[in-house]
Amino acid sequence: MNSKVTVWGNGTWGTALAQSLARSGHEVCLWCFVEEEARAINANGYNPSYLQDFQLSPLVHAAHALQEAAEFSDYWLFVTPTQFLRATLEKLVPFYTSHVEIANAAKGVEISSLKLISQLMEEFFPGAAYTALSGPSHAEEVIRNLPMALVSASRNRESATLWQKLLNRETFRVYTNPDVTGVEVGGAVKNVVAIASGLLHSLEIGDNATAAMVTRGLSEITRLGVALGGRPQTFSGLAGIGDLMVTAYSRHSRNFRLGEMIGRGMTLNEAAAALGQVAEGAYTVKAVKKLSEKFSVEMPISSAVHEVLYGRLDLKDALQNLLTRDPKPE
Amino acid sequence: MNSKVTVWGNGTWGTALAQSLARSGHEVCLWCFVEEEARAINANGYNPSYLQDFQLSPLVHAAHALQEAAEFSDYWLFVTPTQFLRATLEKLVPFYTSHVEIANAAKGVEISSLKLISQLMEEFFPGAAYTALSGPSHAEEVIRNLPMALVSASRNRESATLWQKLLNRETFRVYTNPDVTGVEVGGAVKNVVAIASGLLHSLEIGDNATAAMVTRGLSEITRLGVALGGRPQTFSGLAGIGDLMVTAYSRHSRNFRLGEMIGRGMTLNEAAAALGQVAEGAYTVKAVKKLSEKFSVEMPISSAVHEVLYGRLDLKDALQNLLTRDPKPE
Repeated sequence: MNSKVTVWGNGTWGTALAQSLARSGHEVCLWCFVEEEARAINANGYNPSYLQDFQLSPLVHAAHALQEAAEFSDYWLFVTPTQFLRATLEKLVPFYTSHVEIANAAKGVEISSLKLISQLMEEFFPGAAYTALSGPSHAEEVIRNLPMALVSASRNRESATLWQKLLNRETFRVYTNPDVTGVEVGGAVKNVVAIASGLLHSLEIGDNATAAMVTRGLSEITRLGVALGGRPQTFSGLAGIGDLMVTAYSRHSRNFRLGEMIGRGMTLNEAAAALGQVAEGAYTVKAVKKLSEKFSVEMPISSAVHEVLYGRLDLKDALQNLLTRDPKPE
Repeated sequence: MNSKVTVWGNGTWGTALAQSLARSGHEVCLWCFVEEEARAINANGYNPSYLQDFQLSPLVHAAHALQEAAEFSDYWLFVTPTQFLRATLEKLVPFYTSHVEIANAAKGVEISSLKLISQLMEEFFPGAAYTALSGPSHAEEVIRNLPMALVSASRNRESATLWQKLLNRETFRVYTNPDVTGVEVGGAVKNVVAIASGLLHSLEIGDNATAAMVTRGLSEITRLGVALGGRPQTFSGLAGIGDLMVTAYSRHSRNFRLGEMIGRGMTLNEAAAALGQVAEGAYTVKAVKKLSEKFSVEMPISSAVHEVLYGRLDLKDALQNLLTRDPKPE
């Protein structure tokens, strides 16, 4: 089944997904927020800003005009930074029809509203078919066609299966899951635990401590996800621990590196400047703090990250607080 | 509460646990299978065979005589290699009394009987109080007093809490769990997935693929554990994904290194010779294969490891088989 797909966003992950869809024989319109980038992609066949070393398939073309991208296909795959998504969706409302299948592969929580992406989509496109795509997926490896696996999560089974069929190939394995909320919470909050992992790494505290922290981090992500309506088993899967591992154990992760730099004594602003951008987890931790208070969920690791990034505790005191808590039943 | 504890086995993990108990103020008798090692520890204050760089606490002394070690305390902590445990337990039956609290911190399944350690203990000491200790714990880090966390699992809550109290310190955090079977299955089978991780690493296949494989590995460990009577949530905890991560992501792990060497073209015997010993997972995979057949549990990753170690498939064919399976719902 060869189809047409619109990919909204030409960052690293959007670019890698576009190329991956083209490898499966689909025709892709890659929407670019910046007009010159769209022009450059169409002229030169590669993205001037991300993954520049990779020639894109001739099946991928770029567009900057919203209407052109919207009318190109009924399969809309969003890979737009979460804090900018609302502004894009507002402009797309006139072009949406009930034939459109919406998917989202970006991660995060909208801080201003504390909404998950599925809730934001529902606000603009009430009743739309919606699928969340998530899992361990460094774009730099996906574009090289190295094997990986992803979750396609939708409350409606046909949509989950549709995106599975569109994307699944030998090196791009797609598993379905009905739990949109769990998949979205896992994808967003893992960035906070990745910052914690980078912080610990800066202390040279060892593999045991990192594994214990990531595991207890998974517990608190699960508690929050369940409070929001997710299913516990989702967090043991690709969009839970899978994505958490690849982020918390990888120097490629911006969130990990942000934590490491702050652990070595940089301020948040200095670390963001060194990275060229603030890592998503530094935003997410604010939303997580509010959500954990709103739903009365104990999240000691996320709280510690929040304290170190925005509060008055230094890293060693924050760690000391964690280590002297009473361990509870698992 | 300062107590006396007998640690049965002076390998790296037994030595580190003895030292850790002594740090909490307990008096420890460290039983050594080899008489000269006991003598050397008592003469020089360090273990001549493992962790030689670490001076042991004066609260640790060694013994080779079974009766001496057995009568030293009512807290027996076993850290004996699983395939040799039966031979030791047989000889201890005469010294056991109903006051004894038994714990075990070694990992594995007895291949000849397919028994978990708890089942082996029940065979020799029917009705004994039993606690399984497991979690991410490279001994080399524990002896350096770096922070870590462990699970104390017992069907009887008092025993789980007793070992928690004996062991818990700021840098040695002990969580309780009622699920002995789950904790034991997690600890044993993770070694098989660690071999798979080493095999993948030899192919330079990327972080996404490793995270996906470890996650799917966790799924199959969970399926087996649940079939044997464990609780699914245990596998999301320290003795499940925690221990799995530290093993599958660490070059310190013998199982990981065994997989890597075989992936680079060594035979199992050559890799074992290079390591100085066969890694436990190479035994466990045989038991896992039999258990998965006996309980009709699908375990594609463990099967692939078994095929590569003992069958006729080479690594690339085994991987190809995995990648072309139909992905199912998570």
